[in-house]
Amino acid sequence: MRTRAAVALEAGKPLEIMDVELEGPKEGEVLVEIKATGICHTDEFTRSGGDPEGLFPSILGHEGAGVVVEVGPGVRSLKPGDHVIPLYTAECRECEYCLNPKTNLCQAVRSTQGQGVMPDGTSRFSMPDGTKLHHYMGCSTFANHTVLPEISLAKIREDAPFDKVCYIGCGVTTGVGAVINTAKVEIGATAIVFGLGGIGLNVIQGLRLAGADRIVGVDLNPEKKVLAEKFGMTDFVNPNDVDGPLAPYLVDYTGGGGDYTFDATGNVNVMRQALESAHKGWGESIIIGVAPAGAEISTRPFQLVTGRVWKGTAFGGARGRTDVPKIVDWYMEGKIEIDPMITHTMGLDDINHGFDLMHEGKSIRSVVTY
Amino acid sequence: MRTRAAVALEAGKPLEIMDVELEGPKEGEVLVEIKATGICHTDEFTRSGGDPEGLFPSILGHEGAGVVVEVGPGVRSLKPGDHVIPLYTAECRECEYCLNPKTNLCQAVRSTQGQGVMPDGTSRFSMPDGTKLHHYMGCSTFANHTVLPEISLAKIREDAPFDKVCYIGCGVTTGVGAVINTAKVEIGATAIVFGLGGIGLNVIQGLRLAGADRIVGVDLNPEKKVLAEKFGMTDFVNPNDVDGPLAPYLVDYTGGGGDYTFDATGNVNVMRQALESAHKGWGESIIIGVAPAGAEISTRPFQLVTGRVWKGTAFGGARGRTDVPKIVDWYMEGKIEIDPMITHTMGLDDINHGFDLMHEGKSIRSVVTY
Repeated sequence: MRTRAAVALEAGKPLEIMDVELEGPKEGEVLVEIKATGICHTDEFTRSGGDPEGLFPSILGHEGAGVVVEVGPGVRSLKPGDHVIPLYTAECRECEYCLNPKTNLCQAVRSTQGQGVMPDGTSRFSMPDGTKLHHYMGCSTFANHTVLPEISLAKIREDAPFDKVCYIGCGVTTGVGAVINTAKVEIGATAIVFGLGGIGLNVIQGLRLAGADRIVGVDLNPEKKVLAEKFGMTDFVNPNDVDGPLAPYLVDYTGGGGDYTFDATGNVNVMRQALESAHKGWGESIIIGVAPAGAEISTRPFQLVTGRVWKGTAFGGARGRTDVPKIVDWYMEGKIEIDPMITHTMGLDDINHGFDLMHEGKSIRSVVTY
Repeated sequence: MRTRAAVALEAGKPLEIMDVELEGPKEGEVLVEIKATGICHTDEFTRSGGDPEGLFPSILGHEGAGVVVEVGPGVRSLKPGDHVIPLYTAECRECEYCLNPKTNLCQAVRSTQGQGVMPDGTSRFSMPDGTKLHHYMGCSTFANHTVLPEISLAKIREDAPFDKVCYIGCGVTTGVGAVINTAKVEIGATAIVFGLGGIGLNVIQGLRLAGADRIVGVDLNPEKKVLAEKFGMTDFVNPNDVDGPLAPYLVDYTGGGGDYTFDATGNVNVMRQALESAHKGWGESIIIGVAPAGAEISTRPFQLVTGRVWKGTAFGGARGRTDVPKIVDWYMEGKIEIDPMITHTMGLDDINHGFDLMHEGKSIRSVVTY
């Protein structure tokens, strides 16, 4: 079939909107009509050429929502008409990782996904001239139709609006999940969140949901304060207003440090500040942001020997097929908010404008609707 | 009173054996006759001048066992004749740290202890000419008699031999506790231990006690293999025998990496290898060793984002008054071994020889008996 897509032809170039060829679903695969997709920094990381593992030409996009059109042989958990959210972290429920309760990093389709192909080693997408296009993060939601493995789709309730819950496909789950699944924050905790962008705001509302008492947001941009407060931030610290090193200031400001601290910046220097502003004896620091290729974190080992714990999280520690439908429920029940974070909506033809808004810092999240 | 002690007069010099003056116990304090004391690398770290916070002149030693001689006013948990192990990590059971189940780092006497004095800000030790001597780590077990706060003494059973259980005052508890309290290793786990000295051997027997299936020891010295196997090591890897980087080799060797890895070397490069040889998704790496002043650990944040956890431990996460008596029981019941690790015993007059043996790599642990 033919479908409309935004194609990343080469690194650093704007996406090109065109018709592409899409083969139907093979064994264990599902054809999905994407109804909406968010534009995430990770898409930009690849589009710009910043990701050394980025593949071109490809169809980017990994934060979508849509409807099942057709299922391939052997697919049993989904049928045409089901509403779904694509998962860049699959959940096969059979591999060594899925069977270990400590991780969400299902390995079932990991290696082929990283190579931009389906589990059988081939791509379903091609250009009209026959040139193969790579899939992206197993999702490729910048196409109106896409094919995914059955284990890479979370079935969700049918009354949830696509143009909002698509954000649960990455940003919401990453931020809220870092709090709930990775840090397992307790009621009454003190937390510090570095970076008040799309992920940081979701960390903040995750902390509110978990019952944290003090939620300190840290950002260089004072304009972030008002919106972050709407999601539950109780204190705002602008590092530009602090004399001397930031971590000791935050330790003092919070009366000992954060029980939990979160890096939502991707900056390795901030990751160190986040660790060192965690409470002696028990503070845990969670790395969420993706650092530039080759960048390294560092600290004195004394920071860990005196009880701080350094962790990271991917997709918020969520097992997609199990946890994403629950997070959709939380949104529908008003336990978390999404609408105020979706600052811009546009058609696929304007997707490059969405990337511009991100660069200009004007959007929290732009969503493309088909 | 007068007592015999090995005094560190200045950094880098051998200890001097002499009679010193010791004031009796004040409110909340206890006078202890030390019967035996181990010589630990931390004593050497301070003696050598390597510790920038080291104080001189002082009476070193922090790994002892002895008998209560006299208690000061207000002491209720101990009486003359009780057998005790001094604790460099106190347990007051009242501070914010003692009341948080996530940490053992009681802060009750922390700041005065770091200044080499008792909680009232003064020292009980002096030279015959009246010069004040600093206490060390709140213990000063290189004196035949010493004074400690009541909360810095673990009461132990009276049938336990001083010249063996003194080692529980630091090395045994640090190694075994890192496994039991900090890592909380489960039955069937795969573990990798870097460094097969006194601490590493205790990590290994802690892993055996916890029911680990594979216990991989890593050391540059092939002579460590035989003894480590006696304590439960199942596999030995000598980095000199490995082509290429060590961490990927160990990940491959263990079929994915260690569920738990332990650094017992104090070398920051080894700490990185320990982290990076932990299993993707859930591997935890525990730093036990004390690094040189100013040294830093580093890694790519991707190591943490893909599920590895970086932790540290001090005194094996043990709450001394509660946990040390239990570890003494484990020794008396044969659950853990100590005797084969105590390779040398000597009188106080020969204590500098014990430091020589440590430097020459000839001892696992030397113990001074009074």
